[in-house]
Amino acid sequence: MTPNPAAHRALDLRAGTVEMVHGAGGRASAQLIEELFARAFDNPVLRQGDDGAVIVPPDLGGGRLVLATDAHVVSPLFFPGGDIGCLSIHGTVNDVAMMGARPLWIAAAFVLEEGFPLADLSRIVASMAEAARNAGVAVVTGDTKVVERGKGDGVFITTTGVGITLPGVEVGGARARPGDAVLVSGPIGDHGMAILGQRENLAFESPIRSDTAALNGLVEALLQAAPAVRVLRDPTRGGLATTLNEIARQSGVGMELVEAAIPVRESVAAGCEFLGLDPLYSPCEGRLVAVCAEADAAAALAALRAHPLGRDAARIGTVVEDPHCFVAMRTRFGGQRTVDWLVGEQLPRIC
Amino acid sequence: MTPNPAAHRALDLRAGTVEMVHGAGGRASAQLIEELFARAFDNPVLRQGDDGAVIVPPDLGGGRLVLATDAHVVSPLFFPGGDIGCLSIHGTVNDVAMMGARPLWIAAAFVLEEGFPLADLSRIVASMAEAARNAGVAVVTGDTKVVERGKGDGVFITTTGVGITLPGVEVGGARARPGDAVLVSGPIGDHGMAILGQRENLAFESPIRSDTAALNGLVEALLQAAPAVRVLRDPTRGGLATTLNEIARQSGVGMELVEAAIPVRESVAAGCEFLGLDPLYSPCEGRLVAVCAEADAAAALAALRAHPLGRDAARIGTVVEDPHCFVAMRTRFGGQRTVDWLVGEQLPRIC
Repeated sequence: MTPNPAAHRALDLRAGTVEMVHGAGGRASAQLIEELFARAFDNPVLRQGDDGAVIVPPDLGGGRLVLATDAHVVSPLFFPGGDIGCLSIHGTVNDVAMMGARPLWIAAAFVLEEGFPLADLSRIVASMAEAARNAGVAVVTGDTKVVERGKGDGVFITTTGVGITLPGVEVGGARARPGDAVLVSGPIGDHGMAILGQRENLAFESPIRSDTAALNGLVEALLQAAPAVRVLRDPTRGGLATTLNEIARQSGVGMELVEAAIPVRESVAAGCEFLGLDPLYSPCEGRLVAVCAEADAAAALAALRAHPLGRDAARIGTVVEDPHCFVAMRTRFGGQRTVDWLVGEQLPRIC
Repeated sequence: MTPNPAAHRALDLRAGTVEMVHGAGGRASAQLIEELFARAFDNPVLRQGDDGAVIVPPDLGGGRLVLATDAHVVSPLFFPGGDIGCLSIHGTVNDVAMMGARPLWIAAAFVLEEGFPLADLSRIVASMAEAARNAGVAVVTGDTKVVERGKGDGVFITTTGVGITLPGVEVGGARARPGDAVLVSGPIGDHGMAILGQRENLAFESPIRSDTAALNGLVEALLQAAPAVRVLRDPTRGGLATTLNEIARQSGVGMELVEAAIPVRESVAAGCEFLGLDPLYSPCEGRLVAVCAEADAAAALAALRAHPLGRDAARIGTVVEDPHCFVAMRTRFGGQRTVDWLVGEQLPRIC
């Protein structure tokens, strides 16, 4: 991994404090993770910098497992198209799937705030259970803690997933190569705009629903058609722009995107314009980015489009050589623009 | 598992709310887990009711893994003998070890409150890293979220552990049989009194330090000497009394304890008396309870005592037939007393 271009100044570990931006999935998040967590816990698996860890249990015949964890603090807890319950299953199922694995088991830990209505908790848990059933995973263990009123926010859910790697599949953020095709499985930014619309009480002409969904089925369909896919990642916090920058940096390459090829719903584009946001940075919870060799691109795209969750899949760009790891974009008007890391805090508590 | 004797009345899922007592590890916790979580997520692994899940990955030669998760919300974050960082490693390492497995990998998810000093976070993470190194586990993946000031409490840490089961070992809360010996690895209640002393600003004559420690080494030493140990559990939330009641209920047996045989430090006994608490309900974070056949008891006790973390191990009672699953205790004064489930909320946010 090349050094983080974000780290202009080191974290102030003496007098600094945690800021909202440290949780937004952009530069500040990457810096906190690198300078504090990754440094303290340093080991070869963590150093890969992927959304989960490949672990190889000794004496299990060389089989490989994937472990991924996600804390969910989304606000509001209920939003158009979903709630923190199904989101907490989808988020972790997707992290495991993006590692080229089949998610099978989930551990769930709840931090509940005193006074939270049991009726709401019950709805959330029912939504989790349904999402788990639909995704083919079992919630096999858990923990529950309660904190005093004003020391939490209703409910936080940390889910951890374990899956088995699909045979013959080798994916990872560091595997993109110049000449590769960059695909996205559908319109971007729906989840972010659904949350923001709810939070700001916006009335959209056509209501925007979160795209939250379990992508393990889509991943298996894709990998069956194109087993040599090199990178899989879901553009959640920080959106498509951040995800592509992460891949570019991990792989030591650049990217050239075509703005007109990136699918964005009209309602999402309009909502973003109204709020002064860029859909490229608006999180998805049911989309994936795939990078594959040019020769596999047609088969991969066809496989995505043949699946209900990938109907609007598109090829959005190409990997290029670039020692600076820039993500560039040809705009609709024929210009060229750099798609940078998310600097500010666009959308806190989005997942 | 026999029905929970605690559930006198069903949870009010229409108008009820989460109360602090739901997180205290006693009857109310058990009821919330059973009537809400276990019912929604129902599956054979979860139904075992242990502190972790045994999972068997297909195509891995029949090897078995253990998965366990723990949310840590302890307050204060720093306390005599430890902090939330090392505690979050020890808690999960111990849950995996109590399933008869060797913990190897940890996933860590942080929910940080805006404004939390990075210096404190750095100390906590350093303490986690040291605890992980000492326990022989690697933190291989993680997640970080930030919530607004007043929506969290400094830092919550959810750790999830994966381990491999030790060959030939079969332990579980439902395996205790009449005639078995009940052992504890050392003095009970230290952690609870260390936290409470700090919280209430009590000045003990001799300061009480938390017993927080990773017990995987002690478990391996014990299982080498007495591989037929039937139950292993760490008496954390709810203390020894709650843990023994859980085992009695899962196994459908009773227990007879000898009060004079239960190791309690003088300072802990004095602190409990001063605060009107019972050390039997005060949590430990570095002790284990083992149930084994009478024939294995001497070897098991000797193995515990030969390890630095088990020097003061003791046999504290015997498993008996009892369809009511009561835990009874012969008191120091020759009387008989029932050691019931923790009913009230003795110690919130203890781990």
